Amino acid sequence: MNDTFLRACMGEKVRPVPVWIMRQAGRYLPDYQKVRGTTDFLTLCKTPELAAKVTIQPVDVLGVDAAILFSDILIPVEAIGTGLAFSEGRGPVLSPPVTTDAAIKRLHAIEPEKDVPFVLETIRILRKELKNKVPLIGFAGAPFTLATYMIEGGSSKNFVNTKKMMYETPAVFNRLMNLLTDVTASYLLAQIKAGAQAIQLFDTWAGILSGPDYEKCVLPYVQRIMDSIKQTGTPCIYFVLDGGHLFEKIKLARADVIGLDWRTEIEDALKRLGPVTVQGNLDPCALFLPEEGLKGRVDEILRQGGLARSHIFNLGHGVLPEVPYQKVKLLVDLVHKLSA
Amino acid sequence: MNDTFLRACMGEKVRPVPVWIMRQAGRYLPDYQKVRGTTDFLTLCKTPELAAKVTIQPVDVLGVDAAILFSDILIPVEAIGTGLAFSEGRGPVLSPPVTTDAAIKRLHAIEPEKDVPFVLETIRILRKELKNKVPLIGFAGAPFTLATYMIEGGSSKNFVNTKKMMYETPAVFNRLMNLLTDVTASYLLAQIKAGAQAIQLFDTWAGILSGPDYEKCVLPYVQRIMDSIKQTGTPCIYFVLDGGHLFEKIKLARADVIGLDWRTEIEDALKRLGPVTVQGNLDPCALFLPEEGLKGRVDEILRQGGLARSHIFNLGHGVLPEVPYQKVKLLVDLVHKLSA
Repeated sequence: MNDTFLRACMGEKVRPVPVWIMRQAGRYLPDYQKVRGTTDFLTLCKTPELAAKVTIQPVDVLGVDAAILFSDILIPVEAIGTGLAFSEGRGPVLSPPVTTDAAIKRLHAIEPEKDVPFVLETIRILRKELKNKVPLIGFAGAPFTLATYMIEGGSSKNFVNTKKMMYETPAVFNRLMNLLTDVTASYLLAQIKAGAQAIQLFDTWAGILSGPDYEKCVLPYVQRIMDSIKQTGTPCIYFVLDGGHLFEKIKLARADVIGLDWRTEIEDALKRLGPVTVQGNLDPCALFLPEEGLKGRVDEILRQGGLARSHIFNLGHGVLPEVPYQKVKLLVDLVHKLSA
Repeated sequence: MNDTFLRACMGEKVRPVPVWIMRQAGRYLPDYQKVRGTTDFLTLCKTPELAAKVTIQPVDVLGVDAAILFSDILIPVEAIGTGLAFSEGRGPVLSPPVTTDAAIKRLHAIEPEKDVPFVLETIRILRKELKNKVPLIGFAGAPFTLATYMIEGGSSKNFVNTKKMMYETPAVFNRLMNLLTDVTASYLLAQIKAGAQAIQLFDTWAGILSGPDYEKCVLPYVQRIMDSIKQTGTPCIYFVLDGGHLFEKIKLARADVIGLDWRTEIEDALKRLGPVTVQGNLDPCALFLPEEGLKGRVDEILRQGGLARSHIFNLGHGVLPEVPYQKVKLLVDLVHKLSA
């Protein structure tokens, strides 16, 4: 088994450095497009054979060191009672938006085997089909990030409604966060039980908050989830997009691995994070660089990653649909070759 | 004359702390809405009597310590040959997008008295009508931020086309940045000549870049503009949204004042910026807090601002249309009272 990824998660310095790509099962990949041409996004998420198929594609095509479950962070949000649809170009639409106590009361706790059986079935299929070739990462959205989608009814620019709830009715906000924390913990534990060998918790929007707001309104909930997962011995990666100003707080989340976006260089991040394991952090747009330029950047990230406790190579955010997949394959090869 | 703002710009610790609000002439203000009800946004920008009128409104209604020219950062972009329209909800639309050398060659240098006479006339009217009650701030978008709008054809999520140009055709990108640097410098010098007493340079989108990219593709151009302005003795504020990871580079821009968004606390920012003058940095959404909560935040920002060379109070980004204007007035009063 290629266990470089799992060993790196546990803090072991591994050569070559393991690499996987956020959103590696995605639109930039012709094989994925073929499957997507036959079905809509949500149906793909909910059809275990197809979800497993697109999960494995990048392992075969790119040679990455981990597979990540094909799904969406909003799947459990739909499962507890919020309407979910994806519209081309507009992103997710959640209805009705959850902005009151009454709306929260209409939601329910999650029973993963009953509410999201297709996710667990996908994981079970994947563990069989991957034959331990590479480990399988499960994932979920962190409570704050899920809450923003629910409160705003979708994506947002200024997150006005989320902050309004945080500031005007903190008890209501706290109730929603508690519910989502329980949901996320149950959901992840079920993924682990079904066979997920590592977890990534995506807190995509927590970076819109200042340090004091993050510490009060996000961190305690994330810590609770981390504590649940820790009891299983499964490593967990915590990724906050645009979280550079929060590093001192993020390290208190007790994740095994801290995911970094491309904005802060690893060397600078480590000065504030201490000797942790990091994942990242090539600018997704750097895949538009000519090969020589890309090589220079990969080299530099590997050098800086060498200063961490251990390092998992990744992009600083999801791979963009506009990128030629051959360039992504080149990236994976470069990481392996340059860190051998 | 109330010169607290200008003295603070020059590095003098001033009591009470001066305060103005980014986008203080805006949609949250009923008096502004009345004027906007009679005309579209671009016409308002280009009609000196009206632009002057809405510039003065917040000075009268809120009691802020500075006026800022009512205009838009894209005005000079239109003036040099790019089509500009504002569509409700979608933001600015620039056409055609500037993505090639040929497109850059179709643009021209700026002659402010000929190309944007309405801006200079607005400033001259304002200096008369303000009667030195408070100083007048002129402004411009920084070259990189303007370039993103031109290359993307408007607002953007991932700035893919901008980064593609930066990475794939750096010579073309450099040509566009040089043009925009000359345009911005000429435009600001004309504003100063017409009567602007301080300048704010908005680099709204520079925060999408990593440190090395910022240093190579943004900083040298900003420095050139700062050097031009410095020769006039007019103080300049440099504001980068979400620029916390760039502080060590931003201070090299040699601005008199560094504008901070709400993400990084002033105390933490100063550790990396050194003993500079700062402007900021209340979360615009904190205006949804009840009075007691708002007071607590203002107090804390004033305490941290006291650690800087000097401090100008502001929000960390533009005031939101959803905020009641009475809350903004309360904020201005609180700043003055708590820092007296």
